[in-house]
Amino acid sequence: MFLAAPTPGLDTGDTAWLLACTALVLMMTPALALFYGGMVRTKSVLNMIMMSFVSIAVVTVVWLLAGYTLAFGDDAGAGLIGNLDHLGMAGITPTSLTGHVPTLLFAAFQLTFAIITAALISGAIADRARFGAWVVFTAVWTLLVYVPVAHWVFAPGGWIAAKLGALDFAGGTVVEVNCGASGLALALLLGPRIGFKKEAMRPHSLPLVLLGAGLLWFGWFGFNGGSAMGANGLAAAALFNTQVAGCTGLLGWLLVEKRRDGHATTLGAASGAVAGLVAITPSCGSVDLLGALVIGLAAGVVCSYAVSWKFRFGFDDSLDVVGVHFVAGVIGTVLIGLFATAAMTGGVTGLLHGGGVGQLGKQLVAVVVVALYAFAVTYGIGWVIERTMGFRASAEHELTGLDLAVHAETAYDHGVLGHGTAAHASVLAHSSDKAAAV
Amino acid sequence: MFLAAPTPGLDTGDTAWLLACTALVLMMTPALALFYGGMVRTKSVLNMIMMSFVSIAVVTVVWLLAGYTLAFGDDAGAGLIGNLDHLGMAGITPTSLTGHVPTLLFAAFQLTFAIITAALISGAIADRARFGAWVVFTAVWTLLVYVPVAHWVFAPGGWIAAKLGALDFAGGTVVEVNCGASGLALALLLGPRIGFKKEAMRPHSLPLVLLGAGLLWFGWFGFNGGSAMGANGLAAAALFNTQVAGCTGLLGWLLVEKRRDGHATTLGAASGAVAGLVAITPSCGSVDLLGALVIGLAAGVVCSYAVSWKFRFGFDDSLDVVGVHFVAGVIGTVLIGLFATAAMTGGVTGLLHGGGVGQLGKQLVAVVVVALYAFAVTYGIGWVIERTMGFRASAEHELTGLDLAVHAETAYDHGVLGHGTAAHASVLAHSSDKAAAV
Amino acid sequence: MFLAAPTPGLDTGDTAWLLACTALVLMMTPALALFYGGMVRTKSVLNMIMMSFVSIAVVTVVWLLAGYTLAFGDDAGAGLIGNLDHLGMAGITPTSLTGHVPTLLFAAFQLTFAIITAALISGAIADRARFGAWVVFTAVWTLLVYVPVAHWVFAPGGWIAAKLGALDFAGGTVVEVNCGASGLALALLLGPRIGFKKEAMRPHSLPLVLLGAGLLWFGWFGFNGGSAMGANGLAAAALFNTQVAGCTGLLGWLLVEKRRDGHATTLGAASGAVAGLVAITPSCGSVDLLGALVIGLAAGVVCSYAVSWKFRFGFDDSLDVVGVHFVAGVIGTVLIGLFATAAMTGGVTGLLHGGGVGQLGKQLVAVVVVALYAFAVTYGIGWVIERTMGFRASAEHELTGLDLAVHAETAYDHGVLGHGTAAHASVLAHSSDKAAAV
Repeated sequence: MFLAAPTPGLDTGDTAWLLACTALVLMMTPALALFYGGMVRTKSVLNMIMMSFVSIAVVTVVWLLAGYTLAFGDDAGAGLIGNLDHLGMAGITPTSLTGHVPTLLFAAFQLTFAIITAALISGAIADRARFGAWVVFTAVWTLLVYVPVAHWVFAPGGWIAAKLGALDFAGGTVVEVNCGASGLALALLLGPRIGFKKEAMRPHSLPLVLLGAGLLWFGWFGFNGGSAMGANGLAAAALFNTQVAGCTGLLGWLLVEKRRDGHATTLGAASGAVAGLVAITPSCGSVDLLGALVIGLAAGVVCSYAVSWKFRFGFDDSLDVVGVHFVAGVIGTVLIGLFATAAMTGGVTGLLHGGGVGQLGKQLVAVVVVALYAFAVTYGIGWVIERTMGFRASAEHELTGLDLAVHAETAYDHGVLGHGTAAHASVLAHSSDKAAAV
Repeated sequence: MFLAAPTPGLDTGDTAWLLACTALVLMMTPALALFYGGMVRTKSVLNMIMMSFVSIAVVTVVWLLAGYTLAFGDDAGAGLIGNLDHLGMAGITPTSLTGHVPTLLFAAFQLTFAIITAALISGAIADRARFGAWVVFTAVWTLLVYVPVAHWVFAPGGWIAAKLGALDFAGGTVVEVNCGASGLALALLLGPRIGFKKEAMRPHSLPLVLLGAGLLWFGWFGFNGGSAMGANGLAAAALFNTQVAGCTGLLGWLLVEKRRDGHATTLGAASGAVAGLVAITPSCGSVDLLGALVIGLAAGVVCSYAVSWKFRFGFDDSLDVVGVHFVAGVIGTVLIGLFATAAMTGGVTGLLHGGGVGQLGKQLVAVVVVALYAFAVTYGIGWVIERTMGFRASAEHELTGLDLAVHAETAYDHGVLGHGTAAHASVLAHSSDKAAAV
Repeated sequence: MFLAAPTPGLDTGDTAWLLACTALVLMMTPALALFYGGMVRTKSVLNMIMMSFVSIAVVTVVWLLAGYTLAFGDDAGAGLIGNLDHLGMAGITPTSLTGHVPTLLFAAFQLTFAIITAALISGAIADRARFGAWVVFTAVWTLLVYVPVAHWVFAPGGWIAAKLGALDFAGGTVVEVNCGASGLALALLLGPRIGFKKEAMRPHSLPLVLLGAGLLWFGWFGFNGGSAMGANGLAAAALFNTQVAGCTGLLGWLLVEKRRDGHATTLGAASGAVAGLVAITPSCGSVDLLGALVIGLAAGVVCSYAVSWKFRFGFDDSLDVVGVHFVAGVIGTVLIGLFATAAMTGGVTGLLHGGGVGQLGKQLVAVVVVALYAFAVTYGIGWVIERTMGFRASAEHELTGLDLAVHAETAYDHGVLGHGTAAHASVLAHSSDKAAAV
């Protein structure tokens, strides 16, 4: 029972919302674990989930020790990186403020973005990465890729925010283009799964995928709404835009599927919703609801085609990090140049609202630079890991399944399936080694 | 990094709570998808989930374009419907306020209610509705049924709120009676599933049902607590009442089961909790904790019997939308007439607190009118859809299962079940086409 | 549509955060149900889930009627128990305040702690407790064990808080040591499961365990962050500490596993995260981030060994309530004596920050007293229940599985597994009684 004395300048309402958002965005990574875990085959579910969970842990420690200060410490010059004043969060106390909220809260909120961006990459290399290599990768990648890009775009002194003037409200470049380009680099480096393009590799549990998608959607309100850094009209607009774009993304994808394949699928619904949510991430703070409607729809439609590029070009982006996150991230970031309205941005106006092509150009520059930087550095990190400790799992482990081979576990163990189905009972009667069954 | 200038009249604490509530209530529909999905057979899990997910998308677009203004625009006269001033959310900016919160937030919060009400109906027609017909239905139903009823009850100028003076804090009529009566109409119109009353149609995954129930309960705090439109004592009371009634609903149902059947089931626990939560939805803002205790208990006990009416009367309300939502919605709305206390309502007092039978009568009128309106108009909408595009799925699709027939997917694909059970290994050895498996 | 008049002294931001936290912590018990449910064998999943759900209901009713007033009513003398002024929440209205938030909200928030503490105990007696006995136990245990300890530690007049001066921010003693010692008492009283130490009793669904762990982590931000009773710097620090300790707990456990067993497991990741979260629960309001880092790491490492004690000493603490909650609870509570910093506590300083051994001694006394009290009284309650109504399930029920034997349900029913695997199709063709399969 402790009543902290009020901190002058702290707004309890803004703080309450950002506390809730931090919890919501942290939850997105376990949600992603299930979303991804449902999409893989039974034999590597746990490895997929584990890559997300260990990202939470590794990125948190890296962020605490050095990531935060490099991303959000005062600019060290040229807008490229923050200074080292807050190594190990030095100099930040519970009464330090950033805007109207505690700096510790701001740091924790930003941490959750770093975590999920790293975790998202794992979708591009499902079923075939060495676990120890992944652990090392997430630590190095966070410091060398995530942290600088976050500084460029999110820190007041970062060059993309302060000099270029590109807009990215909640991470179209920092999170989405970044994880997409990085995922592509690793997918190319590791090569395709054994059986890629030959075997059907169907999701082992679509209910798990849909559960993950539902929780991601829920968390996304914190992701985008929290990026307003307070409980205000901007947060409300961002939240409503987020909802609208997720919905039109879902509808766009299903419409394409229905026309193209004759079937609207649940995997398409989940993927379309995520595509719409990705596209509105950079733009939710600068467009109105009708802008959000179009941006989400565009993302749903385009991504429903983009996910087949991997088969055409032969890169095994297993769970479509490129086809969904990269592509929709580009769409959302670039379309700010068309749909930005001064009522949201307080100034910047997009082409369709009479603002000329200037902003469009800035958005394109931001996307291209972040994509190239992320791709190149990630490829370099991956290359070094592959040459030193090895990144790709052995063929034997891959065929056995990483769950059993690496983690010594299997996702499901129903033992004697004694739950009431006559078919099973009969089947078991044919079996000569019932006794051995656990 | 954006610090919006303060908006005069906006309370950041109230806004923070309503932002969180909006996220919570949106999450309830994916949770409902799992709750319903767990209850159906393996062959139509995905279709069940898909009906909820597509409701999110369709209702959002309808709400944005026309639903909001018809429900919450200024009354167009007679308390029946709102005006068209805000088509496409025209005239609403991030600084517009409703009470102490942004109007965009109020609109988004109310949207989440419209979504889940539509999605709830799907439980009455599980396993046998054409997917395209459902998509059309949700759009039309939202405009013709949900929106007017929401105006009557929730808008300041609506006739039930302003003229009749019936109380409904968070949607006993608007959400619960409404979806229940609509579900009954569709269940009657489509007819029972093949095998109804002949085959056991057991839930394929009770853990999924319980997961859904747990998330629904969590979201319900936003549903009822958010209906106070601020972070205040009324929200706190509504939240505590919600918790108490969910609990006594659970206990009431289990007590009946134990006495009647000899077994307390998890499906009963989940259903009883939902029944209690439904019943407290209209009443959580007008009764005290002991009132909530009785209302929840009454709902749990009565609904545990009401779910068998479908077998007696032969309507296949597959997942008990009538037996739980309609019945508990009626109980909760009507019992306000007994349990309302002035300490909560600021005026209205129920019969048991010395307030006479007047309020009871008003509550009954509200329930009857909403039930009749919803039933009749829904039946009409469904009839037109059935006669034009067809609403009931083909018998072939129903027998195959809608997942494979309509969505070209199966919920689970464990391929070669290579997860360590000797029984399965043995079974697979009997199979001559192992190679084809996966 | 109701705008409550402002209550003088109420802070809407603080209230918004505590409302959200109450929802989050309530959600932790369904999450625990899944976490525990995934860990047991297929035949007793539902019973495990049901023990958590029924705890929600029973503890809520007990709390409402008598628990709250005994825990948080004014001290009745000697700091041992609260008075009876608020039986049935008498005298508490929606405008009553505790600090800057409604008293009803404070009471509901504290209720969620009581619920999960009772539910946690069930992990120690998985698969072998009579359901009716469990229901009675939770009611009696809440009144005789939880409520007094909560008063000692959390109420302003409680002897541990006010006289001893031990620190426990969010329940290291009240929740973690308490449930752990109580679980040990019941595990000893009921004896081990049939087959303990002989059969492998593997988790039937690790994805369910990881889902539960993810949701628990999410909810824990409400648990620890909400214990600041407001949206302030202390809440922010508690939340960030929570995140850090969960992460280093996870890493610590995995490091031990990798070195000791050669494999890092997902069960280890989940258990390690929970161990870290448990340990930071008492300490998150009194240590800095580097303190949190060490405390979490210590908990992860130590608990990864502690979970094997049950095999050495022969008590069947089935799901490691002792090995994780008790052990990490002790670690976190005691280490406050080393790591407390005045910047967090406003006064108390631990040994490593120059504060001497005094606080360490107080922490040890609190742990020992709570552990002994909880163990002894719980053993007594269990003993009476075992001798009167019987606590241990019959061997027949245990072998059949409690799901079918007690609840007349099975967790999963995939019926004819007609979901597209050729192996299954083939298997079913061997079966002579397909028709009987549902």
